[in-house]
Amino acid sequence: MLSKAVLKYINSLQIKKYRHLHQAFLVEGAKSVKELLQSDFSIEKLFVTEEFLRKSTEINFNNGTYELIDEKDLVKAGTLITNNAALAIVRMKPLDFFNPEKALFTLVLDDIRDPGNLGTIIRLADWYGLRTIFCSESCADFYNPKVIAATMGSFTRVQVVYVDLPEFLKNAPSNIPVFGASLHGQNIHQLTLEPVGMLVMGNEAHGIRPEVEKHVQELIQIPRFGGAESLNVANATGIILDNFFRNK
Amino acid sequence: MLSKAVLKYINSLQIKKYRHLHQAFLVEGAKSVKELLQSDFSIEKLFVTEEFLRKSTEINFNNGTYELIDEKDLVKAGTLITNNAALAIVRMKPLDFFNPEKALFTLVLDDIRDPGNLGTIIRLADWYGLRTIFCSESCADFYNPKVIAATMGSFTRVQVVYVDLPEFLKNAPSNIPVFGASLHGQNIHQLTLEPVGMLVMGNEAHGIRPEVEKHVQELIQIPRFGGAESLNVANATGIILDNFFRNK
Repeated sequence: MLSKAVLKYINSLQIKKYRHLHQAFLVEGAKSVKELLQSDFSIEKLFVTEEFLRKSTEINFNNGTYELIDEKDLVKAGTLITNNAALAIVRMKPLDFFNPEKALFTLVLDDIRDPGNLGTIIRLADWYGLRTIFCSESCADFYNPKVIAATMGSFTRVQVVYVDLPEFLKNAPSNIPVFGASLHGQNIHQLTLEPVGMLVMGNEAHGIRPEVEKHVQELIQIPRFGGAESLNVANATGIILDNFFRNK
Repeated sequence: MLSKAVLKYINSLQIKKYRHLHQAFLVEGAKSVKELLQSDFSIEKLFVTEEFLRKSTEINFNNGTYELIDEKDLVKAGTLITNNAALAIVRMKPLDFFNPEKALFTLVLDDIRDPGNLGTIIRLADWYGLRTIFCSESCADFYNPKVIAATMGSFTRVQVVYVDLPEFLKNAPSNIPVFGASLHGQNIHQLTLEPVGMLVMGNEAHGIRPEVEKHVQELIQIPRFGGAESLNVANATGIILDNFFRNK
């Protein structure tokens, strides 16, 4: 059984203000918690079901400091519709110092509002080996439980940094190529792209804002062969990343 | 105001059994209803807000047979959290007769359960000009409101046909190449793919079932450069489709 105080604390971490006040966030479900336990994140509290414990003999459970919980209490405390495995309260980490460099390919997100899209993009970035994503301050919060869930564990490997995006791009070293996805860009199938520099992806409905686009050096697009007017931004990010990495 | 009977009818169409009993389904929101009105689907009932009517002067509103509704009633009746535009009750269409042909590239989905994934895959198929998707009977229902919403209008251009998949593939003409996505397949960056034949994508967690995979001639995979164990199936479908169409 969870005490009322702990339940209240967990519930408060569903809200951005309280996550940042407490410098803590939630990680839920078998896959995400397993990846968490293999990362260098520091765990404040870990709740696991007997079933999860029994099934996961390969895992070092936070040096034994966990509490058993039953499935009903787990679902009641957390944000998932089903969860028969685990929930962790995790400390936020200070960000690594990072300077954009030409040699490192980084993703830049302008006003990506949907937590599912942000999470899926983090998972894609991890697939292609990217270490850092820069987000405008209006993007969904990295520590939102829906973002964490959609990354499927990739939140442990990709760092998300919130910046004033026009300012950030204005101050980036001038030798770094900056690409941006746009329905008016050059056909990526006709370019030979290399994973160096930065790729900017814009808002779900409106694309890249003008004040960000003016710092983009090359607009690119996925050629269209059929009737759909646009693609989901996470799908578009995946396709464009693949075009950058196919010549690597 | 909606009558109780109409409200009950609309609510019943959120359930697969009743959709197929009544041979009708729901289309909601501005973008989807606009695309619907430009398609050859037959509309049983159309509810629109004054605001949507005023903003959409370019649209032929179902030959004038619509009912005005206010936003509150629209949200109450439908499945969307916000909808200030329109909701339609639409007749299901008989499927076109279709034989798999080598010249037509088609997508085949094995056990894709998530409605959002199916809808997003339909949108991707539409972007690349595919006309038909074959689904195993265990896939999400095409007429599920969440599927329709996620297609962003592409449900009007892509036909989804449910089949006994192992049987269907067994009986396909032998000159049709059948590709399947698998973490054990050949690297798509090292193949020159052409959009002919069929591409099979498997279940979110388990991939392609063995009884389906035995009819696949060539297993292919997206090469991985980083730490994520897998990709979301809609993202993977988009990336693989792009690799098929990049040489077209």
